[in-house]
Amino acid sequence: MLTDLSSCDYTPKKELENRIGRLKEGMAEKGIDYAIVLQNVDLFYFTGSLQKSYLVVPVEGDPLFLVEKNIERATAESPLDQISVARDKDVRGIILEKGIRGKAGMELDVLPVTMFRRWKTILDIEDAEDVSGIIRDLRSVKSEYEISQLKKSGEICEHVFAFAEGFIKEGMRELDIDAALNAEGRRKGHQGFLRMRGLNQEMMNIYVTHGRSGAIVSGADVPISGTGITHAISQGSSFNQIMPGVPVVVDYGGGYNGYITDETRAYVAGEMKEPFLRGYQAAREIIEETGRGGWAKAGTNAAELFNRALKIAKREGLAEHFMGYGRSRVGFIGHGLGLEINELPVITPRHEIPLKEGMVFAFEPKFIFPGEGSIGIEVDYIVRKDSLERITGTPIDIVYV
Amino acid sequence: MLTDLSSCDYTPKKELENRIGRLKEGMAEKGIDYAIVLQNVDLFYFTGSLQKSYLVVPVEGDPLFLVEKNIERATAESPLDQISVARDKDVRGIILEKGIRGKAGMELDVLPVTMFRRWKTILDIEDAEDVSGIIRDLRSVKSEYEISQLKKSGEICEHVFAFAEGFIKEGMRELDIDAALNAEGRRKGHQGFLRMRGLNQEMMNIYVTHGRSGAIVSGADVPISGTGITHAISQGSSFNQIMPGVPVVVDYGGGYNGYITDETRAYVAGEMKEPFLRGYQAAREIIEETGRGGWAKAGTNAAELFNRALKIAKREGLAEHFMGYGRSRVGFIGHGLGLEINELPVITPRHEIPLKEGMVFAFEPKFIFPGEGSIGIEVDYIVRKDSLERITGTPIDIVYV
Repeated sequence: MLTDLSSCDYTPKKELENRIGRLKEGMAEKGIDYAIVLQNVDLFYFTGSLQKSYLVVPVEGDPLFLVEKNIERATAESPLDQISVARDKDVRGIILEKGIRGKAGMELDVLPVTMFRRWKTILDIEDAEDVSGIIRDLRSVKSEYEISQLKKSGEICEHVFAFAEGFIKEGMRELDIDAALNAEGRRKGHQGFLRMRGLNQEMMNIYVTHGRSGAIVSGADVPISGTGITHAISQGSSFNQIMPGVPVVVDYGGGYNGYITDETRAYVAGEMKEPFLRGYQAAREIIEETGRGGWAKAGTNAAELFNRALKIAKREGLAEHFMGYGRSRVGFIGHGLGLEINELPVITPRHEIPLKEGMVFAFEPKFIFPGEGSIGIEVDYIVRKDSLERITGTPIDIVYV
Repeated sequence: MLTDLSSCDYTPKKELENRIGRLKEGMAEKGIDYAIVLQNVDLFYFTGSLQKSYLVVPVEGDPLFLVEKNIERATAESPLDQISVARDKDVRGIILEKGIRGKAGMELDVLPVTMFRRWKTILDIEDAEDVSGIIRDLRSVKSEYEISQLKKSGEICEHVFAFAEGFIKEGMRELDIDAALNAEGRRKGHQGFLRMRGLNQEMMNIYVTHGRSGAIVSGADVPISGTGITHAISQGSSFNQIMPGVPVVVDYGGGYNGYITDETRAYVAGEMKEPFLRGYQAAREIIEETGRGGWAKAGTNAAELFNRALKIAKREGLAEHFMGYGRSRVGFIGHGLGLEINELPVITPRHEIPLKEGMVFAFEPKFIFPGEGSIGIEVDYIVRKDSLERITGTPIDIVYV
């Protein structure tokens, strides 16, 4: 019924069965008897629908998809059987009736204390195990269906970066570029906003930074955050005007059917000045080295990607500018992508974990020069058996405008 | 240092002192010895800065503003004294050193369980009281400074609605209007996104709905949500094309220096058809009745605003379409505005509370006709001693395009 209005694919039933099956395996390992999924993104992941609802997954037996509002949409969107409920309290009776009991699991990384207490009362339980680790782990490995959605998200990125090439001009404000590029992505079918998991985790859809605005960091855990136009947001594009010779760094997030891509390119009016040219060349070399000869692939230690990048930064004499400066340096060069922008894996020397086939991550070598500005490139990779595959086809060259 | 990049006012010191003073009064009433503020919006409210930080407010004595990152920005933005900390764990030692002890208060409505447990360990406490009710109550009454910021936010709304008048045309997609209006607001200085408090609370910056897309509701607690273009977001503008005679309902949220305004207007190509004309006239009458003769003002029972509106809807034979239809009806006609879009007061028959001078709320009589579409008007009011004052000057007439 909504197809002509929305156009996105419905999540296939096999996908959902597979995801729920993997959740049950994780629960069984931890001795959890049933999980209650309440966060909207996790609900979408397991049901294909993002209505007001509650998903109960017993470690054995069929999941219960309990929908409060809007049941018509949930029915259209999700192949799972639905049970209509009037309120959260009704969940208890249904669980009892189905004979579900034992140790409960909930998403304790996002569930607020007040809501947790309410659910403990509803379920008449004393405590619950945290299932968020299991969910985040299984969500970090994408199916071919999910990769197809990520590629459509990447097409929006490609379109926006191609548009930027003809649009960005000297004298514009960062904000003008932000507004126009965002609008262009939206017209192309961008979902409207990006999601980040956790309290205080907020994202702009686009960051246009230029010169000193790109070297001023915020409280956010990102290498380049921009200043924004208010202390109440404290990140994003500003009123700063584009000057020749200094790069305009565009960090844009595609969003299609929930799936997020996240890439960065640099544009410059006239000839690019130092230290940005040197920074750009190092970033480019890091990306080329990462993709070279298929050394990075399923099984590769994620920390090795960071360490090789740092080695190049050091060789180019840019170590102190790599991924930030001083206390504002971030400890990662990449982050997982999916329905949220801070998924696993994190590409950092602190996580010595093997990349798994189907993981998808943004990889963003960036250099910050205090008081002067910043430069960097960001591309998205799919971890394949024998290589890393790029999601978009947008070249990583500097674009002269 | 950031003034030319950001342009917004810094929060005056007197404001912050007043807010912290009121927080302490609320804490004293509840026997809370110290509060730890962790949510970013509350941090901005009490410190004027939204960096990565922790605010400790003892019921007696000076607040401790502990900043992890970025301390330079926090120093520029906040008149409060700052203490630099390297990590959350450092808070414990500083609290002990200052002799702060006793019953702790935290924002349990938003604090996730995992983070709460971490803080209980850091502070070596067994439990904490919920201070979110105190904070939400005191935030619901705006100072004249806050009202000045809300008025600037309203100016962005006014600008966007004026732009819409010349832009909206038959044949466009909802999404085209969404993209262009959002871009226009951003260029005018819109902060970039709107905030909503709580888990799963998500907002688009703009909703453009038309015909049947306006009559399909989502899981969100709003009368008109639109379908969006993906089940993963499930609200907002769609690919639906504008036809003559059927209203384009534009619900737009201004955002300036954190402060949100939220208004709705209707545009129509050609002559507006029934049942929309009847719905529009009822919505208009409700707004005129609400502003008539200064009966609604500080001290008025908020429920009375809802009840008078419902009476008009009934008289016009539109009761079953008022604020939704069937199970998807929402139970309110207005909601508080401020740094978040779901602030207090809620204008509903369920809350018999007197409006307080300085409260600000959106008031949105809307009518939903299943399968056909929806129509409504939304204006923002400041509660004054003797009246309700409108925030924007945008007329509530239908705009014929």
